[in-house]
This record gives sequence, structure tokens and C-alpha cells, in this order.
Amino acid sequence: MRTSKFRFGWGKHALSVLLAYVFVSACAATPAAVDPLASWTDGATKLAIERFIERVTMEGGPDYVPPQQRIAVFDNDGTLWSEQPWVEGQFKKYQIKKAAERDPSRRDRQPFKAAYENDLGYFETGGLPVYLGPARTITSEVSREHYDTEVESFFATQIHPGLEVPFQETIYQPVIELMTYLRANGFETFICSGGGVDFMRVMSSELYGIEPYQVIGTSLVKELQIVDGRSILVTKDELDLFNNKDQKAVSIDLHIGLRPLLVMGNEGGRGDIGMLGYSQGRDGISMQLLINHDDEIREFAYAEDDDASLNAAKKNGWLVVSMKDDWLSIYPTEEK
Amino acid sequence: MRTSKFRFGWGKHALSVLLAYVFVSACAATPAAVDPLASWTDGATKLAIERFIERVTMEGGPDYVPPQQRIAVFDNDGTLWSEQPWVEGQFKKYQIKKAAERDPSRRDRQPFKAAYENDLGYFETGGLPVYLGPARTITSEVSREHYDTEVESFFATQIHPGLEVPFQETIYQPVIELMTYLRANGFETFICSGGGVDFMRVMSSELYGIEPYQVIGTSLVKELQIVDGRSILVTKDELDLFNNKDQKAVSIDLHIGLRPLLVMGNEGGRGDIGMLGYSQGRDGISMQLLINHDDEIREFAYAEDDDASLNAAKKNGWLVVSMKDDWLSIYPTEEK
Repeated sequence: MRTSKFRFGWGKHALSVLLAYVFVSACAATPAAVDPLASWTDGATKLAIERFIERVTMEGGPDYVPPQQRIAVFDNDGTLWSEQPWVEGQFKKYQIKKAAERDPSRRDRQPFKAAYENDLGYFETGGLPVYLGPARTITSEVSREHYDTEVESFFATQIHPGLEVPFQETIYQPVIELMTYLRANGFETFICSGGGVDFMRVMSSELYGIEPYQVIGTSLVKELQIVDGRSILVTKDELDLFNNKDQKAVSIDLHIGLRPLLVMGNEGGRGDIGMLGYSQGRDGISMQLLINHDDEIREFAYAEDDDASLNAAKKNGWLVVSMKDDWLSIYPTEEK
Repeated sequence: MRTSKFRFGWGKHALSVLLAYVFVSACAATPAAVDPLASWTDGATKLAIERFIERVTMEGGPDYVPPQQRIAVFDNDGTLWSEQPWVEGQFKKYQIKKAAERDPSRRDRQPFKAAYENDLGYFETGGLPVYLGPARTITSEVSREHYDTEVESFFATQIHPGLEVPFQETIYQPVIELMTYLRANGFETFICSGGGVDFMRVMSSELYGIEPYQVIGTSLVKELQIVDGRSILVTKDELDLFNNKDQKAVSIDLHIGLRPLLVMGNEGGRGDIGMLGYSQGRDGISMQLLINHDDEIREFAYAEDDDASLNAAKKNGWLVVSMKDDWLSIYPTEEK
């Protein structure tokens, strides 16, 4: 299914590469430029992004923004990688299974029993309520080092159910290109996500080139303790802050202290409306990008039942990025 | 008073500069190197810092630390600038005075009356309790833009009582040099302070070269609201998080996600013991620096009544920086 779309993408892409090559060859002294947004379809969306970056970086221009204010913030699930299913949720079930493997006494009660016996139906029926709390309890019982190792082990061994590739291959190549392009133009790139901050930080540098100190997320309460003479932070079985919706704008202020010049989020859970609006409230120029999950062939097609995010985009003039139309390829390993 | 010490410092400094000059002149082909820690006395403390930075940056060496992990965290009050009196406290009184000037109806009640009439005795007697709460209330009544403008106005017009210079001239030149030196060696530098995060962020870039997103501090509760179609964050009259003592380690984890490779704090309020210990708990090499306020001639001499910070330094092998002995000059504008 996905292959046919890829070939279509490849055809359009080949043409633009060919045209670019002919053009560049004609200017003998100019080295062949690589398109920093090569996975984006040549069209209005790509052009708007390119023009925006040109305007804010043009010294002396009317929309010039000094580098210190070039803050770009990205949601994670559904914006930087696929969120069907929620990757961190898959990890939480993996954590529960590992806990059942370590401790046989857990196996006779739920959700450990279901995880140990690969009873996926139990989790499908129960949904988040049956595993969010137990996963938090397990996290509070292990050291941070153990937690990090388990996240790494999850990524090293587990496969996305549906796409049948490692989870780290479900990142969106066009957004990776956009972040790289922004950084090359003096932007600082941040993640602001409802995902767990400790979970995201294990992989953010490798997957996205974003260091842990530029990742903002949901957190559990922690406490400094001295154990055997060494200071350690103990994670408590208690939510500190759920970083979603309006809270994302508050967290951006707490962690960054500036209104972002660019925010990219996605429709699907109404989670990014708050921070997109907060960015738009900036004095002067700014850009808001909302990914529309409209590609049932190459990714997944889903929508909010009230279209709240798409309606907000329409009302406020945010740029809607169609995965189907604006992206030549979605995943880094796709043939183009 | 201060002048005599400066002359003493200048004498020692002149000698080391002369010796360095003779040495460098002897190596004709070598361009004269500028000492990145020119305001530090040549001695054990300076040497320990230089050696530490050499070790963590020496590729292939046993203590090499990759740039991503080169996190340096600094306290602010008493570590980056003088804290006698507490600068932000001076600003809070200034805020109260400005509020009384704006609104005459306030002038018949305290602390507005005292601020309006320059009754310093009232504030000295009452201390923090008489103005912390009212200043927070005022902050919740004005926009973030107004708050920032008032901080700028404070720095532009007010003078340090005692040192008789603008507050921004009470920053510590040796620590500015250390931060610059660290950044030149691939470190990211952060502030983690009990001070208000919004207050510090107005001046952190100009004073310290630290951008707002690398400043961690005390925060008030904020709420996203849409006013006249524009998203704004409204500050509430409610403390969100007091960033002091053990909380500093927790905040470092929340904002940075890594144990710092270097932490610098100061004795005086026991505020930095938690984050110094948290840094030391890092696997592998790390450095902890504790400033001792022992220079009554050039700055101020004060100590905790139980010497908790100095005792922790002694017990844990943290490097105590003597302002009297280790710093040739303290302030950027001093004659050397």
C-alpha cells in the first residue's frame, strides 16, 4: 500500500531534482546546492516556510528577528513521529512485562498477568487506565539509570505494530529536515510534548538532534535523597505536571521565557492549540504549523471529532501541513 | 577601603602579567595568549579549574566528557553578583514604590506608604515579610511586558546601597571569565537560583551571556488566557515553585535532565549544598566550587551560623573559592 504512494512521490521529486540540477549546472561557479527541505513537495506550504525563514534572518529587513529570539518549538507525538499507537504507551506495557519477568509474584494480578502472557486484548479493552498507573509505580521503584536502560532496550528490540519497523524509524523525515534547516539559520529547537520528559530525553538527541535540556514534557515528582553517601533523585509515584494543552504555553514560558517564533503541532488530540496561539501572540512575525494526519496510505488518517485544531488553524491563519500532499516521503528509510 | 585591597591585588597581578610576558616573549613564534582567567590569582584554585577543563576536554584521555554532557550550573545571588543586599529584594521595594506613585489610593497603607516616603527603616525592621507578598501581588496585576520594563528601569536608575555603583556593576568578573572559558570549551552554562526566573531573565543575557532558556529560578503560577483575541499568560498571585536547596537539584533534572559536570555556588544561605552534591553524584569526573564570602574589604564578609556549606565542602572535597585570596579583582570596573 505504502509503496504506490512512495513511487508517486519519487516521480515528482525526481523531476524537481532534475530541474534543480539543470539550473545549477548552468551556473558553473556555483556548487550544487542540496535542498534542505528535500522531502517536502514543492508548493505553497514549502514556499511559505522558506520565505518565513528568509524574512526573519534577513538583516536590515522589516521582519528581522535576532538569533536570541529564534525559538522553535515542536510537539512530539504525531508531530515528530507517528502516534498510532502512542509509542510511550507501548513502552509502558513493555515496562510492565519486564517487571513481571523480574518478579514472578506479580504475575497473578493485572495488568502484569496480561503483559506477561502477551494478552493484548486486555490492554485494548482497558485502554490507558489499566496501565498508566502501574507503569508510574514501576518507574518509581527503579533508579533513573535502570529506567533509561529499559527505554534503550525497548527501542533496540521492539517493533511498531502496523508499520512493522523499529519505532525510531517512524520519525517524520520532513520535520527532521525542517529542524535541521531552522538550526542552520540560528534557531534553537525545543520539544514541548505531553510525553514523559525522562522517556523523550533518552532518544531525543539521537533521533532529533535535540539535547535533553531542550526537551519539555510531563514529569513525575522527584525528591533528592542521600543514599550510601551519594545524592540521588528518587522518582515518586505521583504526577508532578501533565504537560498538555494550555499547560504547554505555561511550560514554554517556564523553560524558555520567550514566545516561540515558530511552533509546530498536529491535529488529533487538541493538544497544541494552546501553544500555537501563544506563539501567534508574539509581537511581530511568527509562524504556526499544524500537521493534518490525512494520509491513510502512507501513515494513518485520523481527526478530532469536532475538528477543534483544524478549525483553530482556519480561524487564526495557521499553516496546515497535509501529510498526503505536502510531504514527498514521510519516513527516513522510505525509497523516494 | 576597597582601594587599598585593589592596589594589593594589582601588585600581585602586575607581577604575574610581567612574568607571563617575559615567558611568552621568549617563545617568539607563539602569539601572546590572553589568560582566560585573568582575574584569578595564580594558585591552587585557578590551577585546579584549568586542569579540570583540560581533563574533560582531552579527547582520548581517561576523563574525557563529550560536549553534550558538559553542563555547568551557577547559582546567582552571591555567586554571579553581590547579594548584600539581595538585589531582587531592592527591586521589589522599587516595584512597591512605583505602584504607590501610579495609584495614590495605596499610599495610606503599608508597605506602600513607607516605599513612597523612602522610609527605609520600615523595611529594615520588617524584613522580607513586609514586602514579598505585596510585590507578588503587584506582579500579578501588571503584564509581563510592564514587569520587564520595570526591571530594566530599575537597573537603569538605581544604585547599590553601599558599593554606590549600578547593580549590574556588582557582578563578579572572575566568574564571568570562568563561564566564558567554559563556553569556549564546549560547555553549556545555566543559572539555577532561588531568584525569580522572570526577574533574572531580563538581564541574564546582557550581564552573563546566558540566554533566558538557560535560566532556572523561582516562579509564580501562570495561566493562559485569551484577551481581545490574543493569547497571553496571566501571572497569578500565587507561588508556583521556590527554587532553593534540594529543589535546585530537582529543577536541574526537570530543566536539564543531566547531572551537571560543574556546579558553582556560595556559602551564606545553605542554598547550594543540594545541587553541589547532586553534581558530585555524577558517574565519573565532576567539579564543585563554593565561593566563600571572606573579603570584608572589597566585598562583604558573612557566614552561615553553623557553617553548613563550608563544612559540606570540607567533608565532600568541594573546592572553596576564597574571594580574598583567589580573586585578583572582584568587579569588572575595578582597576587592577
